[in-house]
Amino acid sequence: MAGNSFGDLFRLTTFGESHGRAIGGILDGCPAGLSLDMEQIQSELDRRRPGQSAIVTQRKEPDTVEIYSGVFEGKTTGTPIGFVIHNANQKSKDYSHIKDSYRPSHADYVYDQKYGFRDYRGGGRSSARETASRVVAGAIAKQLLSNVRINAFVSQVGEIKLNLPYQELDFSKIESNPVRCPDLGTATKMEEYIKKIKKEGDTIGGVITGVIQNVPVGLGEPVFDKLHARLGAAMLSINAVKGFEYGSGFEGVLMKGSEHNDSYNPDGSTKTNRSGGVQGGISNGMDIYFKVAFKPVATVLQSYETINKEGEPVKTQGKGRHDPCVVPRAVPIVEAMSALVLADFWLMSRTNKI
Amino acid sequence: MAGNSFGDLFRLTTFGESHGRAIGGILDGCPAGLSLDMEQIQSELDRRRPGQSAIVTQRKEPDTVEIYSGVFEGKTTGTPIGFVIHNANQKSKDYSHIKDSYRPSHADYVYDQKYGFRDYRGGGRSSARETASRVVAGAIAKQLLSNVRINAFVSQVGEIKLNLPYQELDFSKIESNPVRCPDLGTATKMEEYIKKIKKEGDTIGGVITGVIQNVPVGLGEPVFDKLHARLGAAMLSINAVKGFEYGSGFEGVLMKGSEHNDSYNPDGSTKTNRSGGVQGGISNGMDIYFKVAFKPVATVLQSYETINKEGEPVKTQGKGRHDPCVVPRAVPIVEAMSALVLADFWLMSRTNKI
Amino acid sequence: MAGNSFGDLFRLTTFGESHGRAIGGILDGCPAGLSLDMEQIQSELDRRRPGQSAIVTQRKEPDTVEIYSGVFEGKTTGTPIGFVIHNANQKSKDYSHIKDSYRPSHADYVYDQKYGFRDYRGGGRSSARETASRVVAGAIAKQLLSNVRINAFVSQVGEIKLNLPYQELDFSKIESNPVRCPDLGTATKMEEYIKKIKKEGDTIGGVITGVIQNVPVGLGEPVFDKLHARLGAAMLSINAVKGFEYGSGFEGVLMKGSEHNDSYNPDGSTKTNRSGGVQGGISNGMDIYFKVAFKPVATVLQSYETINKEGEPVKTQGKGRHDPCVVPRAVPIVEAMSALVLADFWLMSRTNKI
Amino acid sequence: MAGNSFGDLFRLTTFGESHGRAIGGILDGCPAGLSLDMEQIQSELDRRRPGQSAIVTQRKEPDTVEIYSGVFEGKTTGTPIGFVIHNANQKSKDYSHIKDSYRPSHADYVYDQKYGFRDYRGGGRSSARETASRVVAGAIAKQLLSNVRINAFVSQVGEIKLNLPYQELDFSKIESNPVRCPDLGTATKMEEYIKKIKKEGDTIGGVITGVIQNVPVGLGEPVFDKLHARLGAAMLSINAVKGFEYGSGFEGVLMKGSEHNDSYNPDGSTKTNRSGGVQGGISNGMDIYFKVAFKPVATVLQSYETINKEGEPVKTQGKGRHDPCVVPRAVPIVEAMSALVLADFWLMSRTNKI
Repeated sequence: MAGNSFGDLFRLTTFGESHGRAIGGILDGCPAGLSLDMEQIQSELDRRRPGQSAIVTQRKEPDTVEIYSGVFEGKTTGTPIGFVIHNANQKSKDYSHIKDSYRPSHADYVYDQKYGFRDYRGGGRSSARETASRVVAGAIAKQLLSNVRINAFVSQVGEIKLNLPYQELDFSKIESNPVRCPDLGTATKMEEYIKKIKKEGDTIGGVITGVIQNVPVGLGEPVFDKLHARLGAAMLSINAVKGFEYGSGFEGVLMKGSEHNDSYNPDGSTKTNRSGGVQGGISNGMDIYFKVAFKPVATVLQSYETINKEGEPVKTQGKGRHDPCVVPRAVPIVEAMSALVLADFWLMSRTNKI
Repeated sequence: MAGNSFGDLFRLTTFGESHGRAIGGILDGCPAGLSLDMEQIQSELDRRRPGQSAIVTQRKEPDTVEIYSGVFEGKTTGTPIGFVIHNANQKSKDYSHIKDSYRPSHADYVYDQKYGFRDYRGGGRSSARETASRVVAGAIAKQLLSNVRINAFVSQVGEIKLNLPYQELDFSKIESNPVRCPDLGTATKMEEYIKKIKKEGDTIGGVITGVIQNVPVGLGEPVFDKLHARLGAAMLSINAVKGFEYGSGFEGVLMKGSEHNDSYNPDGSTKTNRSGGVQGGISNGMDIYFKVAFKPVATVLQSYETINKEGEPVKTQGKGRHDPCVVPRAVPIVEAMSALVLADFWLMSRTNKI
Repeated sequence: MAGNSFGDLFRLTTFGESHGRAIGGILDGCPAGLSLDMEQIQSELDRRRPGQSAIVTQRKEPDTVEIYSGVFEGKTTGTPIGFVIHNANQKSKDYSHIKDSYRPSHADYVYDQKYGFRDYRGGGRSSARETASRVVAGAIAKQLLSNVRINAFVSQVGEIKLNLPYQELDFSKIESNPVRCPDLGTATKMEEYIKKIKKEGDTIGGVITGVIQNVPVGLGEPVFDKLHARLGAAMLSINAVKGFEYGSGFEGVLMKGSEHNDSYNPDGSTKTNRSGGVQGGISNGMDIYFKVAFKPVATVLQSYETINKEGEPVKTQGKGRHDPCVVPRAVPIVEAMSALVLADFWLMSRTNKI
Repeated sequence: MAGNSFGDLFRLTTFGESHGRAIGGILDGCPAGLSLDMEQIQSELDRRRPGQSAIVTQRKEPDTVEIYSGVFEGKTTGTPIGFVIHNANQKSKDYSHIKDSYRPSHADYVYDQKYGFRDYRGGGRSSARETASRVVAGAIAKQLLSNVRINAFVSQVGEIKLNLPYQELDFSKIESNPVRCPDLGTATKMEEYIKKIKKEGDTIGGVITGVIQNVPVGLGEPVFDKLHARLGAAMLSINAVKGFEYGSGFEGVLMKGSEHNDSYNPDGSTKTNRSGGVQGGISNGMDIYFKVAFKPVATVLQSYETINKEGEPVKTQGKGRHDPCVVPRAVPIVEAMSALVLADFWLMSRTNKI
């Protein structure tokens, strides 16, 4: 209700502010008997960690997850999995530039309006640091869905676009470069561009493409909880996301029905896949693919004018260590949210028939 | 859970198949004391009704809503509002062309896989007829949110695009033409094009733009239930929707942070509104605007090949009375879903502070 | 949220006021493929119907259920089951005695305080008429749980108590008498007593015992959603219920642990069953048995003093046709609520292990 | 869904096993702006702590709560309150007597059946240790409901009963003795009796009475979520509880309607209060009072026969440090659960009217 839980049967609830003592979460509803690979969980978290390359924020946050419950002798017990990531970086700093003024296109102003006051340190609850907890839960979801292949990659940074269809890409290359773009030529261009943007003290937007393969037929619930509606909500709940499309997406608008329809093969698969693996809100076994648009990070390391709590104009200067482009570090988050959506629907699908 | 409810505090649950006895719903959580304008509810339903113009399906469905509970002496009582729309058109027809074969890009195949069998008549539960119930509940939500102005309109049909910013449009013109495009020149072009498509027995996609004005600051919950995440899910839950973007959307990807950020005015409003009225998932009082992409309707009145239940190829022919383009009739649905999202968050926001 | 839904996966939402147009509900999450015996549903409803015997209210309400959706060719489709029971008895009557004054121990006063006004006709939403919808959904749940045997019966009316352990009773006798007490000697005494109470224009309380047999091991969720906690909530949600106990109940307080503990047989069953079929909130396969206390019906056909909306004392006279004792007609409701609880946990239990 | 959350708007989710690394929870939906008295929270926890007197378990568990989020500068921020209680006592012990055998009337057997295996250390998730997290959240709820007075006390231990009506008791005496019975004469008898039972290596049941005063009119939702239904579920979810009654309870069964009805005073209060402060599921402003029955603790320090996983008979001996009677330490838990129920309904009631 208050917005900090995701999923019905496989349900993650998170807590924690950017510069509080810790962040973490409770994953409730994970079935018993799953052998958990703890290193794989930490390794997903490392993919999201600050400081991993020259093109991301240089903050030092080790982001080590500690699991407090729900796992015994290496296996899930069916009871809630409580986990915590301590904030290493929480010592008192100089927050005077954000304490009393509202950074443009951040959540400072609306939090103050909504709650009366806010934990201003590092953005508090509105910080993308919260997504680390999602990555932990998503890593468990991935292990639960061991047959499903979930990949995300950067397909656009500013105007630099990866134009190949995903079928022609080698997903094993995604982690080979700091941008997380599987086409190395494009990756290099993106990396150079991000470095240039960073030097300007500016930021730039980007697009992440997600591809989910080997999905069982029948996931997703009709009407309000269509698979792609939940997937869309999942993506739109990630900080800085402005748009979501799946299958033919906005391009599909231009097509006629006779061109857009996907004909069936005898085995129920389709010859084309403009539907993007979902029909009537339910997975049809074809690849689910989608795009997620991220705006440029709002924190720019430049001077700017804004207002303070009293509505008076103030001049200020962005500082700190921030991402010039959010998409490289958002790749594991997109994957994690995909996994959470699918795990929930997968459990739900067990109740469809008598 | 099973996907037929929407909202937490202001909660709609719908039932009904396209050619069953009736469709309808229960709206739970509507506060007591709201004077309901019944004609306004029916009039919203009339905007969605088949047969209203030459460019929509010519099916005869009066779609009269009957309210069974929750209203007394013209006012809501705080108890659930049960309502029913009887299906006038439900007599037994010839469904042989869909009973045993799977129409491409429909939900026939996945329903059979998920549930073991399906009510094939008119698409059953997967029919967009279900959205009539949403329009009823949305009309009540609109009355609850009497200060908020919710408008949607057709901004694109195939390649014909309305290029004016919404601020330059006269929303009072939306209902003046069958396409529901407020720019009459563009509307005429769209209408002609839809007629042409219809003559071909084909269908075409389109885009609906939504604009929500006069929204209080502070609606939306942080993290997973961001205002735009719920709004996106609401839109993606409408039949045929393939994409959603708000504010700068996919275009925002191309911008630098220094260009994209919205500076504040002394009163907390912003000079630009690339954020689309939402920051950190919470309304900031500026206009919320968004785009919803609809694919072309899957039912084409042409002959095509598909498979039957046994996976054998069958030749069939689309028939019946269908929409050549779904967007004109989807405008009230987009508005209804917007209203449901806002009503829910509006009630929720009453609990934010002590 | 607003209190009109029950269950998570097998979820009933009801609507309707006593003297409105209709009552009814939506049952969402019933698995597909269940062959529904419609006569059995109606026959459960007939067990709850007014006018069925001399010791219950003589109101004429045929209570015929109409199913509008979710069933096709006699089987559930997995989509929501919408159903309606039209109110035959809704013509305008003389409600002046309850319109402006508050009947003692009814919900009139609190509804006015909570909602600002109320539908006073026949008690509106607070009328036990709402439970007819529960009986419909419960009848479907019973069919889903075809192996589970759910029986309830009247075990006490005022001071007349059925003192035999349930194991010594013949449940097939429950429906043989209007009180629904399987011991015919006791039943006759209860019947005579209720008739006497009725003649006095008074009412009397009673106890219903429920026995659920052949329950699979493993139903119920740990911690907050223990099987007996949900069962208790289900019973306490029935009009006029004041208490719930299961297994050894309040008597168990007097026992020592060494006396109370149930020893195991080699097959996991227990030699005694003071636990009442539930351990740690989870069914252990033994019989679940419980007692539900009902207060006397508040409507007495006598003259009494009360207050009106202005807080002024008014003298009034109970009238209409009411039950002198609620328990005979509440037996099918207790069974229905039991079935709803178990159906929900039964579906839930499918997700416990990988 | 999976049973580890309680409440809708004021929602507690807990995690943790008895002998895992930590227990804790997330409290979501606490309104912003509440000044939290941290010592009061710890002090509630101390009331539940093992080792506090001679008649409770002598385990050494300091039970210090650490709050990780949701509080800033001493006030709640509206974001989730994450908290942790580290398990001081978790070193590896000898669990051989419970690892492979099933203790009678414990949850060992059903956990194994439900989940396939279990964390057997100290009862794992089924241990009453989990309730410490409830006490933390309940302490926050109490502070939120500063005008409401919530008191619970021991009113029965075995056959020793406190027979005074609660109105004649001095609640300030509850904490003056280790039994938590406000009548000191009775308290002494109970204490002696518990010591005697303890010496026998046995355990005994008891009753806790709860009294909630100064409750606003209008809390509770009609139909399924009646105030007393939620309260009953809350109590029944506490370990070892076998029964719940409120107001006249099981005694009310014996009364006639003309005797049981509560007449109104001009101000809407009632002359008697057999309703127990709730009418039609909604608080009427009168005192809410109820009784909760606890069975004797299942762990007896005697030798007994049971079965192992293979269903073979084994002889074993209860050991460890356990409560001879659970009710003294359960008093703060009953209060905490009461507070959680009321806080949730109090927030909910803000949405009842337009």
